[in-house]
Amino acid sequence: MSVVKTIRISAAEMKLHFIKKLSAFDFSSEDAEKCADIFTQNSLDGVYSHGVNRFPRFIDFLKKGYVMPKNKPTLKNRLGVIEQWDGASGPGPLNAFFATNRALELAKEFGIGCVTLSNTNHWMRGGYYGWQAAKKEHIFIGWTNTTAIMPAWGAKNSKLGNNPLVISIPYHDEAIVLDMSMSQFSYGAMELTELKNEKLPVTGGYDNNGNLTNDPSLILKSLRTLPVGFWKGSGLSFVLDVMAAILSDGLAVHQVAQKEDEISCSQVFITIDPKKLLGYNDKDNVIDEIVKDLKSSTPIDEESQIRFPGERAIHNRKENTEKGVPVLESVWNEILNL
Amino acid sequence: MSVVKTIRISAAEMKLHFIKKLSAFDFSSEDAEKCADIFTQNSLDGVYSHGVNRFPRFIDFLKKGYVMPKNKPTLKNRLGVIEQWDGASGPGPLNAFFATNRALELAKEFGIGCVTLSNTNHWMRGGYYGWQAAKKEHIFIGWTNTTAIMPAWGAKNSKLGNNPLVISIPYHDEAIVLDMSMSQFSYGAMELTELKNEKLPVTGGYDNNGNLTNDPSLILKSLRTLPVGFWKGSGLSFVLDVMAAILSDGLAVHQVAQKEDEISCSQVFITIDPKKLLGYNDKDNVIDEIVKDLKSSTPIDEESQIRFPGERAIHNRKENTEKGVPVLESVWNEILNL
Repeated sequence: MSVVKTIRISAAEMKLHFIKKLSAFDFSSEDAEKCADIFTQNSLDGVYSHGVNRFPRFIDFLKKGYVMPKNKPTLKNRLGVIEQWDGASGPGPLNAFFATNRALELAKEFGIGCVTLSNTNHWMRGGYYGWQAAKKEHIFIGWTNTTAIMPAWGAKNSKLGNNPLVISIPYHDEAIVLDMSMSQFSYGAMELTELKNEKLPVTGGYDNNGNLTNDPSLILKSLRTLPVGFWKGSGLSFVLDVMAAILSDGLAVHQVAQKEDEISCSQVFITIDPKKLLGYNDKDNVIDEIVKDLKSSTPIDEESQIRFPGERAIHNRKENTEKGVPVLESVWNEILNL
Repeated sequence: MSVVKTIRISAAEMKLHFIKKLSAFDFSSEDAEKCADIFTQNSLDGVYSHGVNRFPRFIDFLKKGYVMPKNKPTLKNRLGVIEQWDGASGPGPLNAFFATNRALELAKEFGIGCVTLSNTNHWMRGGYYGWQAAKKEHIFIGWTNTTAIMPAWGAKNSKLGNNPLVISIPYHDEAIVLDMSMSQFSYGAMELTELKNEKLPVTGGYDNNGNLTNDPSLILKSLRTLPVGFWKGSGLSFVLDVMAAILSDGLAVHQVAQKEDEISCSQVFITIDPKKLLGYNDKDNVIDEIVKDLKSSTPIDEESQIRFPGERAIHNRKENTEKGVPVLESVWNEILNL
């Protein structure tokens, strides 16, 4: 099927097209470049769902006026190392990039910085900001709330957000980056699996009869996706939402869910400057030993990949930089015609 | 079977017996009281595995000299709002109680406090420190590493820790408290389920043939427990360990695993003072609305309980305060004879 035919587009070409399309809106040239860069980097790192595949939807949100290209975050409140900012409905990736940098500045003084954003938009791939902080030699803990996409444990209808949590740690010239949403599978992943006529590797939700299943078609019908770890991820999603709303003085998931689409999210960006901590000079050796121990695991079978979080992104980035970013031809044509 | 016969012991009586047993070791009377209080409170809240049921093992660790009753944490390094302390092999619960209070003090000045502990011992129930911070009107994010008990995703043998993560938020006179370890089921929970000749409610690990199973006996044989959310909890466990080791300048899971038992852990305690944040005065209303929305979910069936994290602890505390703490008679007799 042509719908699954992939082509390779170089990062440079991809970014140029993104800039061109963004320039039709009221971005400064610097902002259009940064925004295009984030979408390109996410694609290079292999997170296509929040890179190139998501670009048309981002343009759609600009067209609908959900995302205001020129709006910038404004400071609402500062208290010690915490700052609360209003995202002013600006572009999610630019707001998140700004908030991460601001948290890095705050951490300079006292070792930790915390920036919160209310009224912001989808940050695309949270891992981007984890890498951003790690490349500046900071530990990063950040999360966003989202619209309601998942039932709480014991429930049938969706009240919880996917609320991705990002944790990153600098490691040699790269980073360890966990970027973890609270559902076992995203709708995008389930749709792709269905398209390939495959099953999910583990149970991903319930069918309409209330049985656990790994058939993506049945879950896409019931809309009853599973939280990571059943009751545990249900709880983690909940507390991330409460903290995001309280710390940012922004909307909670149930309020985002009442909007016309997924807009006006609340986000938290915490950075920790570890450079002067005891033992930090030896940090790469410490992590090398942890990674070495992990890699010394007995694999389940020959195909098992035992990776640290972020390792796949490093691998993808290298491969996609050399060969170009794999893109569904249908998606790329859609972008060219936007 | 008498082994599963439960009796009810009042909190006051339980605490007195704990103090008596602890007084045989070199605790100050104040420390014995505090330590007994933590074990009692954990039991009152229904976390028996890290309350009364764990007390004999704690005494055993004291006897073996793994836990040094008189040792106090010493400050290794201070940097802004971050302090690194050496736990000096002191009692885990007392060290964690101290570290939480110290983080609360640090947060007073700049809104956030972070205390790390190296060389400390099992903190029993992490949720205790979440409640401790929340009762002082602070948000709490804390975690510990542990010995290796769980295979990484794709692996057969245990390299990852259970590494419980605790997140708490003040809520009216109580708190929302998530206390979540990184394995889907603890060994204790699986042993109890096996004892009752029951199955786990969802898959908890692999059997020796590499098939996913909810039979606790088979998992207890293979020792191949599942991380929360498969690859996701595997990654989360990993980054929590790396951060704990780096931030505390302490041991990582693979090093704890080489000790004679689970000792010399690394822990992180982060507190956030939200009291002067914009919107915080309205916090209970904000959370009330989030909880109300959660509770308005359509339950799967009549038996479904849709709870916020910590709600069960509040319920258990009330019931156990009235009726006494339910204890396996065999466990209570063991404690009386310690």
